[in-house]
Amino acid sequence: MAVAWSEKASSMEALSLSLSPPMSPPVILTQDELKKIAAYKAVEFVESGMVLGLGTGSTAKHAVDRIGELLCQGKLNNIIGIPTSKKTQEQAISLGIPLSDLDSHPTIDLAIDGADEVDPHLNLVKGRGGSLLREKMVEGACKKFVCIVDESKLVKYLGGSGLALPIEVVPFCWNFTANKLQNLFRDSGCVAKLRNDCKGEPFLTDNGNYIVDLYLKEDIGDLQVASDSILRIAGVVEHGMFLDMATTVIVAGELGITIKNKQ
Amino acid sequence: MAVAWSEKASSMEALSLSLSPPMSPPVILTQDELKKIAAYKAVEFVESGMVLGLGTGSTAKHAVDRIGELLCQGKLNNIIGIPTSKKTQEQAISLGIPLSDLDSHPTIDLAIDGADEVDPHLNLVKGRGGSLLREKMVEGACKKFVCIVDESKLVKYLGGSGLALPIEVVPFCWNFTANKLQNLFRDSGCVAKLRNDCKGEPFLTDNGNYIVDLYLKEDIGDLQVASDSILRIAGVVEHGMFLDMATTVIVAGELGITIKNKQ
Repeated sequence: MAVAWSEKASSMEALSLSLSPPMSPPVILTQDELKKIAAYKAVEFVESGMVLGLGTGSTAKHAVDRIGELLCQGKLNNIIGIPTSKKTQEQAISLGIPLSDLDSHPTIDLAIDGADEVDPHLNLVKGRGGSLLREKMVEGACKKFVCIVDESKLVKYLGGSGLALPIEVVPFCWNFTANKLQNLFRDSGCVAKLRNDCKGEPFLTDNGNYIVDLYLKEDIGDLQVASDSILRIAGVVEHGMFLDMATTVIVAGELGITIKNKQ
Repeated sequence: MAVAWSEKASSMEALSLSLSPPMSPPVILTQDELKKIAAYKAVEFVESGMVLGLGTGSTAKHAVDRIGELLCQGKLNNIIGIPTSKKTQEQAISLGIPLSDLDSHPTIDLAIDGADEVDPHLNLVKGRGGSLLREKMVEGACKKFVCIVDESKLVKYLGGSGLALPIEVVPFCWNFTANKLQNLFRDSGCVAKLRNDCKGEPFLTDNGNYIVDLYLKEDIGDLQVASDSILRIAGVVEHGMFLDMATTVIVAGELGITIKNKQ
């Protein structure tokens, strides 16, 4: 996606940043560059001495890289990172970021992570990249959770992108569980599909579970009710809806950066 | 436990059976013999052609043995068993019981299984033997679920035995999850402990997860609220409370067999 940057006034509690001088020609940025801009903006919230939740995915990767860079430059110090996946753990180790875990650090100052969807109430869908359970554990333990996205992730309602709402399930009789999930949301036109890896085998999460992706044609209504209904299905481990968890969402879009804070 | 048998009139919808002629001396039965009597009684509900959920544990084992015996004798036929654990699967195979799974048979006619606790509303605690998730999946798919216990399992409220309420959790940061569970029920004097195996290593469920056992000093109140609160903790896979699932409970006690049906 190629986009042009200019200044924007957000309708919500927002901070707009001009990235191009008014008279210069528009700068063309790729989606990945937008992600990087959002990520770098989020890292401005990081202070020395913090315990940090390190997110997973193509946007969060830029934030972890940036934190590693600032540590290396001596502009940050005494950071402890809590990775949300094995992949992020490897990335952080390669960058020399000191790591710990929730058992040793049950309270986290700040987490920075991406999302697959953001609704107007800052509820999120996460897990299309395969990580959701560890992210939910880490981000549920944060004082502040900054979510970073490009504007293509904004939706009117969760599931509204037409892309997957991921559910982590135990492998045992996954098809039975998938059918229960599909039936639960049949009024929203739900179709449940097992996620496969590139070899056509079931995708395995870091916890050794499968992912069933739900595709929805319509709004599923009250999200907390939907969440409890999903979790009551024996066989479900966790779902990818992150409700009332993000404290700040940084959106990088064609008209600039918008920062939305939880009301 | 040595007990004497005689006749009993139950206060609930109950069937009382005399196991000793009135004039004979009391018969002394072990707890295991009581379990066997409850199990054999439950197997009387089994009919040829049924899809059967096969439970796990010291009481359910007797029922599976009995089903195998009746199949072998030709008194039952066309049975399909759905085992609730790897252990029961092995037992059933050794007895020649034809097996299938929930994916192929999503509706089960009858399940027979034990329980660790039974409250006056026929809510159960299960999982002290280590199986709870597969049992909950299978028994949630049953038209009829007959639970078989000796009378030592009857409690005024779930957790009332002072023994474990088991919670299956992902191994990742289990201690963090255990603390969340303990805090959730701190008003009930909850203590959460990781279950270890005989070698002192964390006990592994059939799904590769850990078990955190909750020990409660007091009633945890509304069970459905407690259930949802537990399931909302990221890191929890399933809990051992089986609420509103048993359709019949067969209790073998010192005064005979009592059959309690769901109202």
